[in-house]
Amino acid sequence: MRCGQPRIANMDRLLATYRIASPIEGARARAEALAAEQSVEMPVDAIRDERVRREIVATVEAIRPVAGGFEADIGIAAATTGMEASQLANMLFGNCSLQPEVSLERLVLSTGYAKAFPGPRYGIAGLRAMTGADGRALTCSALKPQGATVDHLADLARTFAVAGLDVVKDDHGLANQAFSPFSERVPAVQAAIDQANRETGGRTIYAPTLSGRPREWRAQLRIAKDYGVKAALVAPMLVGLPAFVELREDTDLALLAHPALAGASRIAPPVLLGTLFRLFGADATIFPNHGGRFSYSRETCLALCDAARGPLEGMAPILPVPAGGMTVERVPEMLAGYGPDTMLLIGGGLLSAGDGLLAKSREFVAQVRRGRFPVADAPQGSVPGASP
Amino acid sequence: MRCGQPRIANMDRLLATYRIASPIEGARARAEALAAEQSVEMPVDAIRDERVRREIVATVEAIRPVAGGFEADIGIAAATTGMEASQLANMLFGNCSLQPEVSLERLVLSTGYAKAFPGPRYGIAGLRAMTGADGRALTCSALKPQGATVDHLADLARTFAVAGLDVVKDDHGLANQAFSPFSERVPAVQAAIDQANRETGGRTIYAPTLSGRPREWRAQLRIAKDYGVKAALVAPMLVGLPAFVELREDTDLALLAHPALAGASRIAPPVLLGTLFRLFGADATIFPNHGGRFSYSRETCLALCDAARGPLEGMAPILPVPAGGMTVERVPEMLAGYGPDTMLLIGGGLLSAGDGLLAKSREFVAQVRRGRFPVADAPQGSVPGASP
Repeated sequence: MRCGQPRIANMDRLLATYRIASPIEGARARAEALAAEQSVEMPVDAIRDERVRREIVATVEAIRPVAGGFEADIGIAAATTGMEASQLANMLFGNCSLQPEVSLERLVLSTGYAKAFPGPRYGIAGLRAMTGADGRALTCSALKPQGATVDHLADLARTFAVAGLDVVKDDHGLANQAFSPFSERVPAVQAAIDQANRETGGRTIYAPTLSGRPREWRAQLRIAKDYGVKAALVAPMLVGLPAFVELREDTDLALLAHPALAGASRIAPPVLLGTLFRLFGADATIFPNHGGRFSYSRETCLALCDAARGPLEGMAPILPVPAGGMTVERVPEMLAGYGPDTMLLIGGGLLSAGDGLLAKSREFVAQVRRGRFPVADAPQGSVPGASP
Repeated sequence: MRCGQPRIANMDRLLATYRIASPIEGARARAEALAAEQSVEMPVDAIRDERVRREIVATVEAIRPVAGGFEADIGIAAATTGMEASQLANMLFGNCSLQPEVSLERLVLSTGYAKAFPGPRYGIAGLRAMTGADGRALTCSALKPQGATVDHLADLARTFAVAGLDVVKDDHGLANQAFSPFSERVPAVQAAIDQANRETGGRTIYAPTLSGRPREWRAQLRIAKDYGVKAALVAPMLVGLPAFVELREDTDLALLAHPALAGASRIAPPVLLGTLFRLFGADATIFPNHGGRFSYSRETCLALCDAARGPLEGMAPILPVPAGGMTVERVPEMLAGYGPDTMLLIGGGLLSAGDGLLAKSREFVAQVRRGRFPVADAPQGSVPGASP
């Protein structure tokens, strides 16, 4: 044999739990068909190589009835994922994404598997250090709307920074359009924030949207570096999972993951927006909070937080960022629900204040500072972002 | 104003039709909320810039009741898409991917919009010229299973080429894993096919899977070029839409699009696998045929074919590739349903023949050649792939 036997020792299996909306009577056969689909994608009987049948074909580890169908735990050979993001997504949900009765509910990585991926560079502690936000939740808002001029966006950014927000991000709809090209928008916004930081002593950071083709990214990253940008907003499903990983490896930016196109009704949000985005290098993951414009349940949101902050092979915990129609009025409830290792993102809920934007933004910042745990309340109006 | 007014003249709108599973009573308000979500993502009342309200906010063009809800035609300003794949996907289905009651059903591009994208390089005519497949459907099979040695895969490829298949592709599960690394597999398989072509006078081409990070692609593309590979299999949703576009621009490979992770139950398959993959540069688009392991209806498959082959701003029509559990027995029915501008892909249905693989593959080739239109039947057993 030219190629010889497989050369990696780790034939451990990832454990992926799928929900299948099919009668429990045929569960075993249906689960085995799914296991074949997500590994060899051919009739297992036609495979003569005993090693492939033993080590490569995914295995049905357990079947449990659930309402409306059953759950199957499928053991996917780690070796088949090639230790790479697109192939991992392929093995987890490539072909079965085309089978509407199948959803991916949970994922347990095999021991040591995570080490093949970069994971978050900063995580919660790094973002706290970067912004000086200590012992409390972080605050974030967004520059909107797309179509606005660069001047308008820079003015907004300045207002948010003066109010003491920790992170000012681009709206996820701001890409590299003609009305506010990255090369003009990013220097102007970063300069406005720098100016505000100098005036207040604050440490607001800016996270512009990175999008487009890998080649364009390289130019955008140079601009970001030249102007002292410290973070970026990236939608991994829009730009592609492998490009997201490469970005994590190639830059020092803190990465905020955006859920656009991640329409996760068939990959459970804790798996995709929690575990996988973290594995691939996000430092914070934005998700649609319950009770907003989207439909995640409170339980889903809490499970997503667990996936973002819980143990993952020694990888840094990352900030869950509840968003999507949030208001200042909901801050106490969100802090009570998610605790301090959280970043609260309010966009339209601040921008609706019109001329009252600065006051509303300050109210947001003060609410979160009042919610400080576990140390005592910080004085309202103190320098935002300074360490206690 | 530093940035001035928008500098592009084309403020035309894409027309995206969404299906919304909500009561018709609140349809207008719900549709307007969707239009805001997919453009400015903030309360429209809070936007003071009249130009943004007029030119950037998406518009509700029509509402029609349908079973279980309503359809809304939303006019999305072309300028907001930045004329770039990830941002186009963002505006079409970024945030609303997180709203399970919304699906994207149809898309009409504005006049001239397609010119911003590369489109297919070869299309149907180019793939016919490349393989010598004239006046009949094309044939395709897949190298499986992953985990097999390079020798085994090369042997399979040789058998398929001797049988006269037009295209031999990697299984979509073959990436760059240790058991058959791209750098060993691709030269060996291409050499096996070249050898078979020399023996038979045939013109079988090989389409290896490109996956992984953009940086890895560059190395893989060099290997492909060095060994005379003419095509590639790429899953745009796995590698990322912008990377797919960049690939189309940077190489001369014919591109076969694979639907992994495109789980299109909420973006209608004709839109995603038909129009968009074609716009971004696919020459052929693989889809799960009705009656196979997946769930697309016959109507969906026919609509997808229309999107792949119908008029699109002068872009070349591309090959629809019905697949997913097909068998040689279904060839006449598939030819009758899809006509000659089609590539039939049978993978496991051939591999199940075991020792009879060559005979089964020859039967597949002969069936398709018998289905030649509109010229008379070709003699069975003639040199495969030769022009008539």
